[in-house]
Amino acid sequence: MARAASLSGFPEWLPADRIVEERVIDLLKHTFELHGFAAVSTRALEPLSALAKDGEIDKEVFAVSRLHGDGTDAKNPLGLHFDLTVPFARYVVENAGRLSFPFKRYQIQPVWRGERPQDGRFREFVQADIDVVGEDALAEHFEVEVPLVMAEAFGRLSELGVPPVRILANDRRLIEGFARGVGLTDIAAVLRGIDKLDKIGEEKVAELLAAEAGADARQQELCLALARIESPDASFADEVRALGVSHPLLDEGLGSLTRLLEAAHRRAPGTVWAQLKIARGLDYYTGAVYETQLVGHEDLGSVASGGRYDALASTGKRTYPGVGMSLGVSRLMSRLVGADRMVESTRSVPTAVLVAVSTEADRPASDAVAAALRARGIPTDVAPAAAKFGKQIRYADRRGIPFVWFCDGETGHEVKDIRSGEQTGADPDVWTPPADDVWPRVERV
Amino acid sequence: MARAASLSGFPEWLPADRIVEERVIDLLKHTFELHGFAAVSTRALEPLSALAKDGEIDKEVFAVSRLHGDGTDAKNPLGLHFDLTVPFARYVVENAGRLSFPFKRYQIQPVWRGERPQDGRFREFVQADIDVVGEDALAEHFEVEVPLVMAEAFGRLSELGVPPVRILANDRRLIEGFARGVGLTDIAAVLRGIDKLDKIGEEKVAELLAAEAGADARQQELCLALARIESPDASFADEVRALGVSHPLLDEGLGSLTRLLEAAHRRAPGTVWAQLKIARGLDYYTGAVYETQLVGHEDLGSVASGGRYDALASTGKRTYPGVGMSLGVSRLMSRLVGADRMVESTRSVPTAVLVAVSTEADRPASDAVAAALRARGIPTDVAPAAAKFGKQIRYADRRGIPFVWFCDGETGHEVKDIRSGEQTGADPDVWTPPADDVWPRVERV
Repeated sequence: MARAASLSGFPEWLPADRIVEERVIDLLKHTFELHGFAAVSTRALEPLSALAKDGEIDKEVFAVSRLHGDGTDAKNPLGLHFDLTVPFARYVVENAGRLSFPFKRYQIQPVWRGERPQDGRFREFVQADIDVVGEDALAEHFEVEVPLVMAEAFGRLSELGVPPVRILANDRRLIEGFARGVGLTDIAAVLRGIDKLDKIGEEKVAELLAAEAGADARQQELCLALARIESPDASFADEVRALGVSHPLLDEGLGSLTRLLEAAHRRAPGTVWAQLKIARGLDYYTGAVYETQLVGHEDLGSVASGGRYDALASTGKRTYPGVGMSLGVSRLMSRLVGADRMVESTRSVPTAVLVAVSTEADRPASDAVAAALRARGIPTDVAPAAAKFGKQIRYADRRGIPFVWFCDGETGHEVKDIRSGEQTGADPDVWTPPADDVWPRVERV
Repeated sequence: MARAASLSGFPEWLPADRIVEERVIDLLKHTFELHGFAAVSTRALEPLSALAKDGEIDKEVFAVSRLHGDGTDAKNPLGLHFDLTVPFARYVVENAGRLSFPFKRYQIQPVWRGERPQDGRFREFVQADIDVVGEDALAEHFEVEVPLVMAEAFGRLSELGVPPVRILANDRRLIEGFARGVGLTDIAAVLRGIDKLDKIGEEKVAELLAAEAGADARQQELCLALARIESPDASFADEVRALGVSHPLLDEGLGSLTRLLEAAHRRAPGTVWAQLKIARGLDYYTGAVYETQLVGHEDLGSVASGGRYDALASTGKRTYPGVGMSLGVSRLMSRLVGADRMVESTRSVPTAVLVAVSTEADRPASDAVAAALRARGIPTDVAPAAAKFGKQIRYADRRGIPFVWFCDGETGHEVKDIRSGEQTGADPDVWTPPADDVWPRVERV
C-alpha cells in the first residue's frame, strides 16, 4: 500500500524522539495554561488572499486545490498557512463578538513554507505561539509578560536537558527614533540593514545603509554604534544617550524598553537582555521585538521570536493590537535529537510493564493482570506470543520496558526488573513501579 | 492584517469548546498509552502517487504545490493526506529497520478531503488512529485488542458526557466465504451492495446484487438474510449455519469472529456486537471489520471504524499485516458541541484565579501573588488594568474564572469565590482552590 518516499524538509521522528517532542509540547502547554492562555487551533488552509502581504504572495507559500475540483473553488484559491499569526488574526476578527478582550491564546500547530530546507529550517514545522490581543488598546505590561512566559516555558524545558536561553529585546521605536534623530528617513531600509548584521558583518551593513538608506559616514557609524549596544539590565539606555542623538520617538522607545528590562530583571533576573541590533524582518512590529538564543547554540538562530504590533488585525470599526512570540518546536527538536543528540527518552514506548504469556490458553490470565495494572494508571502491554520467556524479555528489552510480569498458575505472580535482574512476588492489585518508571523519562544524554 | 473569510467544512472551535476537544484528545492519548501504543506523527503531505489507489487518484484529494515553484517539484507532485493509514504505512516501510514489531502506534492529526461538507463530514477533520502492525505475521488476538482499546477509550469519554457506544464487528472472510458458498464470485460487488443496506434498503440492495454481482433471487435472499443477523455474543454463528451455506472461507471467518465475540464478551460484556451487514467500503480489509455507533446518535454514522488488513504495506521482501481503528474526533465534536450541545466546559480559559490589581504601581505585588500560585500548579491570571474592582470581577465572570484575589497593603490578602460571593483571608503560599476548580471541567449540559 505504500513504498518509501522520504521528502526533504518534512521531519518525522522515530517513536522515542516523538516522546521527546510530546514532552516538550506538554511542558509548553502547561506553562501557557498556568498563565491563563487559552488553546486555539485554526484550520491549516487560508484563502491565498489572506496570505498575501500588500497584495503580493510570498513565494514560500504552498497553494492547495482540489485535484479534481469542479471550478467552484477557483474563485477562492487556498494555501497552507506559513505562520500561526495570520490565521489567528483572521480567527480574532471572525469571532471578535464571542471572545473576551484582552484575549490570551496559545496555539501549537504545524506551518508550511516552500523554502529550501537546511539545518533547523524545514518545509513543515511545528510552532508554539502565544499572543495577547486587545480590542483597540493593549497595556504595555503585556510586552513584559509575553517574554517572561516564554522564559518560564524554557525554564521548564531545562528539566529535560534543554540548554538555558537568553531572550533578546529591542524596541522598534528606539531604532526608528534613533534613525530619524540622525537624519535618516527610509526606516525600512535601516531595519533591513541592521537585521543583516550577524550575517554579513558591520562593513557590509555600512555599505547597505549608504546604498539603500542614503546614510553618510557619520550616520552609518552612529547606526552601527547603536547596534553594538547590549546589556543584561536597563543600563543600555545610558549608552544610547551617550551617542548624543535625540528624537521624541527615541525617548518613547528608550522608556518602554527600560521599563521592560527593569520589570524582567525584577521578576526573572538575567533572562531578558537588551540587544539593540535586534530588528526583526517583518514590518508589522511597532513596539518591543524579541529573539531568543539557545546559549551555546547561537548558530541555530532564534528559537522564539516576536514582538508588539499595533494592528494585528482590523475591521472597519476596530483595531486589534497585540504582542506575541512564536517558539520553533521543530527547530528546537532538530537540535535536541539531531546529529549531536542532547536528550533522549528512556524508552521507545509508553509501556512500563510487559505481562508475559505462558501459553496462548493462558492469555486471558495475562490480560487480566494488564487490566488490573492499567486500572491503576500503569501503562502495560501483554506479550504478543507465548514464546520462550527469554524471547519475551527481549521484546521488553528492545523497547526499553523496565518490568516483565510473570503469572504462573503454580508459582503465582512475580515481577522482574530486567535492568537489575531482581525478581519478586507481586500482587497485580497492589504492586506499583517506582514513580520514575511509570512513564518514559526524557533525559540529558 | 486579516479580514473574516470563513470556509465551509473547516471547523474551528471557540476557546471553551477547544477545551472540550483537548480533553477528548487527552483521554484518548492516555488510554492508548496505558495500552502501550506509541505516539507517531507524520507530515501532512505525501507524494500524490502514494495517495493513489490502483494508479487512480480519488477526487477527494487536495493537491499541493509551491505557488512560485521553479519546476523542480513538478517531478514529485504532492497532496494532503486524506487519512492516517496511508502515511503510517509509508512510515512503517521507511523506518522498518528501526522499529520493533509488532509495532503498536497511535496518531492524532488532521486529515483533508475535498468532499462536499455536510453534518459530521468536513474537509479538514481530526482523526485518532490506533494500529498494531506485524512483520510478515500478526496474531489474531490483536483483532480483539484493538476494538477493546477503542471501547475503553469511549468508556473514559463517557466521564465527559459522551454517550455509550456499540462496536459492531464482522469478518470479511465470513461475507466472502458465504457469497462464494451461495455461488457468487464478484465479491467486491457483493460487499459494495451490502455496504449500502442502511442507505438504500433491502429491495434496492437486492437489485444491486442482481445487476452487479449477477445474483439470482435465492442468492439475493440468502445475502440479505446474512446481512440481517446480529447478536451481542457469539450466537450469530448458529444463525449463519442455519442458512445452510458452507464454504471453507466462511468457516474461517465464523471461527475468527466467534473468538473475537467470546473474548470481547469476557473482557467487556455488551461492548462489541456481531453485525453481519458491516462490510466497509475499502477493499484492503482481509479479516475483522469494525464500525462504532454512538448509542442514540446512529444518524451520525460510524464514529470509529477499521479492520484487519494482511498487507498494510509491503516491500520486495516483507509484508506488514495490521489491524487498526480510526476514531473521528471532529465528527464526535460536531455532535458534542454542535446545535444540540451535549457537553460544555465550565470556563473558556484555563485560569482558576484572577489576581486583582489595586493601582498600576501595585502591579508587582499582584504579579508576585500570581507567581506563587502558579508555582503550586494553580493557573492564574493578573487583571489587565487597575480598573474598579467591580470591573475586574466582571473580567473574571465573563471568562468563568471562579476566584478573584485581592492583595491590599492594608487589609492583606483575600480571595473571593465569585460564584458564592464568599470572601476569606488567604496566603498565596498556602491557599489552594478545591481540586475540582483547579482546571476547567467538561460536563454534560
